[in-house]
Amino acid sequence: MTENYTTNENKQLELLTDLYEFTMAQAYFQSEMFAPATFSLFIRDYPPNRGYFISAGLESVLDYLEQVHYTEDDLDYLASTGLFSDDFLHFLGNLRFSGDVHAIPEGRLFFKDEPIVEVTAPIIEGQLMESFVINAINLQVTLATKVSRCVHAARGRNVVDFSLRRTQGIDAGLKLARAGYIAGLAGTSNVLAGKIYRIPVSGTMAHSFITSFKEETDAFRAYAAAFGDETVLLIDTYDTVTGAEKAIEVAREMRQNGRRLKGVRLDSGDMTQLSKQVRKLMDEAGFADVKIFVSGGFDEFKISDSLANGAAIDAFGVGTKMGVSADSPYTDIAYKLVQYDGRPVLKLSSGKKTLVAEKQVFRIKDHRRLVNDIISVRDDEAEGEILLKPVMKDGRRLQPPEALTDIRQRFEGEFSRLGDDVKAIENPAEFMVEISPELEKLQDKVVHRVIEKELGES
Amino acid sequence: MTENYTTNENKQLELLTDLYEFTMAQAYFQSEMFAPATFSLFIRDYPPNRGYFISAGLESVLDYLEQVHYTEDDLDYLASTGLFSDDFLHFLGNLRFSGDVHAIPEGRLFFKDEPIVEVTAPIIEGQLMESFVINAINLQVTLATKVSRCVHAARGRNVVDFSLRRTQGIDAGLKLARAGYIAGLAGTSNVLAGKIYRIPVSGTMAHSFITSFKEETDAFRAYAAAFGDETVLLIDTYDTVTGAEKAIEVAREMRQNGRRLKGVRLDSGDMTQLSKQVRKLMDEAGFADVKIFVSGGFDEFKISDSLANGAAIDAFGVGTKMGVSADSPYTDIAYKLVQYDGRPVLKLSSGKKTLVAEKQVFRIKDHRRLVNDIISVRDDEAEGEILLKPVMKDGRRLQPPEALTDIRQRFEGEFSRLGDDVKAIENPAEFMVEISPELEKLQDKVVHRVIEKELGES
Repeated sequence: MTENYTTNENKQLELLTDLYEFTMAQAYFQSEMFAPATFSLFIRDYPPNRGYFISAGLESVLDYLEQVHYTEDDLDYLASTGLFSDDFLHFLGNLRFSGDVHAIPEGRLFFKDEPIVEVTAPIIEGQLMESFVINAINLQVTLATKVSRCVHAARGRNVVDFSLRRTQGIDAGLKLARAGYIAGLAGTSNVLAGKIYRIPVSGTMAHSFITSFKEETDAFRAYAAAFGDETVLLIDTYDTVTGAEKAIEVAREMRQNGRRLKGVRLDSGDMTQLSKQVRKLMDEAGFADVKIFVSGGFDEFKISDSLANGAAIDAFGVGTKMGVSADSPYTDIAYKLVQYDGRPVLKLSSGKKTLVAEKQVFRIKDHRRLVNDIISVRDDEAEGEILLKPVMKDGRRLQPPEALTDIRQRFEGEFSRLGDDVKAIENPAEFMVEISPELEKLQDKVVHRVIEKELGES
Repeated sequence: MTENYTTNENKQLELLTDLYEFTMAQAYFQSEMFAPATFSLFIRDYPPNRGYFISAGLESVLDYLEQVHYTEDDLDYLASTGLFSDDFLHFLGNLRFSGDVHAIPEGRLFFKDEPIVEVTAPIIEGQLMESFVINAINLQVTLATKVSRCVHAARGRNVVDFSLRRTQGIDAGLKLARAGYIAGLAGTSNVLAGKIYRIPVSGTMAHSFITSFKEETDAFRAYAAAFGDETVLLIDTYDTVTGAEKAIEVAREMRQNGRRLKGVRLDSGDMTQLSKQVRKLMDEAGFADVKIFVSGGFDEFKISDSLANGAAIDAFGVGTKMGVSADSPYTDIAYKLVQYDGRPVLKLSSGKKTLVAEKQVFRIKDHRRLVNDIISVRDDEAEGEILLKPVMKDGRRLQPPEALTDIRQRFEGEFSRLGDDVKAIENPAEFMVEISPELEKLQDKVVHRVIEKELGES
């Protein structure tokens, strides 16, 4: 059985794609279409209350593109569908990704309509990569952006990822921690993510720990005996205020033994009100240094409300709602063919716009902040910082993987220069993104050509 | 690099857990607490518009429990956190899951507060499994339940999974197809899921295929040449009605060659209206047998609306909103200690109820439909069908994995006996779930004992 099969370091994911990628590939093959094509990945619109996105997930994509190939077992499975010819399957068996990739590095901000990744490769190769590229980037962009909102709302207090138990599966649990660390998480409860990505891990106890002891105070003492100065006590199992009083009792015992209680955690009830009560109890008992951690249903909105109401909270454990990006669990991301055999192309389907051709994004900044972006054709020599960098050439990466801490610093630096109005967690302002005159002109030309040819209008 | 590392058939996921499972384990270890504990997994409440859940994900859990163990590499990592003693890590290195599991088989309906899985094991073992058990069951229950709503709304028309590109990661993409197949999907676009789980796969072409050709009709011809009677043409790239006319042209050419066009797909615009127009064009041209497939933003609500408005749709490709269960991307699922060393336990945290002790669910049916459920203590000899079955004993499964088709049939049979009011996709009625007098009495006794002991009240 392979019930929890998902991936072994990208080595067995070549079939993790939509069947139509293979059917199209066979039709291209039979039509002898092997010319280079450029596919552009972008997000069509902002989800509710979003004014920016964080680039994340590129490392997964590059890792995949370098490794992808079809095994005998894969070809046997495809043959079993009865859809594919022997000569096409033979061709597929020899296929490796040989294309070029331009991309916005991880940790940078980007905005709607901007190309995040552009893949230029023989059309079959570019087509076959579609499903994985979209999935990987969509996941980490969605999660990084959500986490950054929680971190921003916490105004300098630590936000720790507690989401593993309710993320949508294993991959999401790991990637939440990775993408979230880029976006400012202080750490994660996810031990495997901590190990793989070298992210700080944290955690103390659950209610089950408390209830397994005959008395709450016994549980507190047992934990303190095992962890000393690292002890954070969960105090809401029976009643938060009573729990705080018992924690103070244990803190006094610890002090007599030369130890200090690090903190208490609240996980239910009106945490704004309770945090103030507990703070007062702690302070009055001479434990002003004991921190108050909270968890239980937090997201950027609840964090923001609690702080606006004067909650005495030192750090947030944020779980489910952040882990699934509950208010906006996906983005309107698309991977579209924008050029084939040197010819810029687009679709006209109602309500969905695609910018043609190979593109570049130019970022205009003054000394303090980001001013606006300009989307143009790739070889434009406009002013501004170039966002899309060459990251893969002829199927080989141009740089080794980046350290996650470097990506995190890049994000931190750029986010500090984004206007507060764009960062607002409700009704953010829209960052200015312009289309260059060159791209606008080309776009118009292609639209007119298509309308004339396909719809018989002029 | 191990960027897309998630799992190799559950063999490297023992650290996919929250750090506090290990810190609690060490505290139990140091307190010499090795007695058996029972943990109960249940969902506390219905998400909006949900009146039932489908049991799914148990296979992942059993697979995990049979394999989980800690390698030298794991122990080295845990040691590097500075939190764990050598004797505890040594103990962990020898640990295997040796407990018993009772569970509701996959494919059955269950309701809020009902235990889905109960794990009885030495407390450290039961505790360490928490994060994985919750994650695996939450994911597949959430997705199976969402898919069943889409299938129910489609009133007998096929629903095919198109969600891979926007599921929250790789694991979610695979499990959507698996859990969704239990819940009635006709098939999936996800090739790897098709291969692993033996689910029918389907798919034809994207807009990129159309735009890569100089003319839309050329693209249609090329696809028809490659796939003959399996051809479904995507007709909305430039304009749906014009696209339908071109499809009719190609269908006529196919007919002359002894072939028939299988269908057309619409992916944008007002698909209720457009489907009627396209149906009329096809019928008038003598192609009444050409099917109309639709995709693009469908979920149970949009499916239901389109059919209520007389859309001429034969099958639905359903993607993102189903794939992430967009209207309800998680459940309020919990894994709680309910008994330790023979003593029933609970927490009192405000607003969160846990039913104590080892339990059983009894299902009362008449000859046509499900009447009500009764939650009781495990050894109650109440009337009704027993839902929780023994599935693992001393760490070994009691039955081999079930065939997915058997689980699907079980679901189909039971769902057909659930009242339409409970299945309603908006404002469903609540299915009656009672607590037995025995459990009620025990629960009261434990609550009183806890209040007296922990809060000093009587």
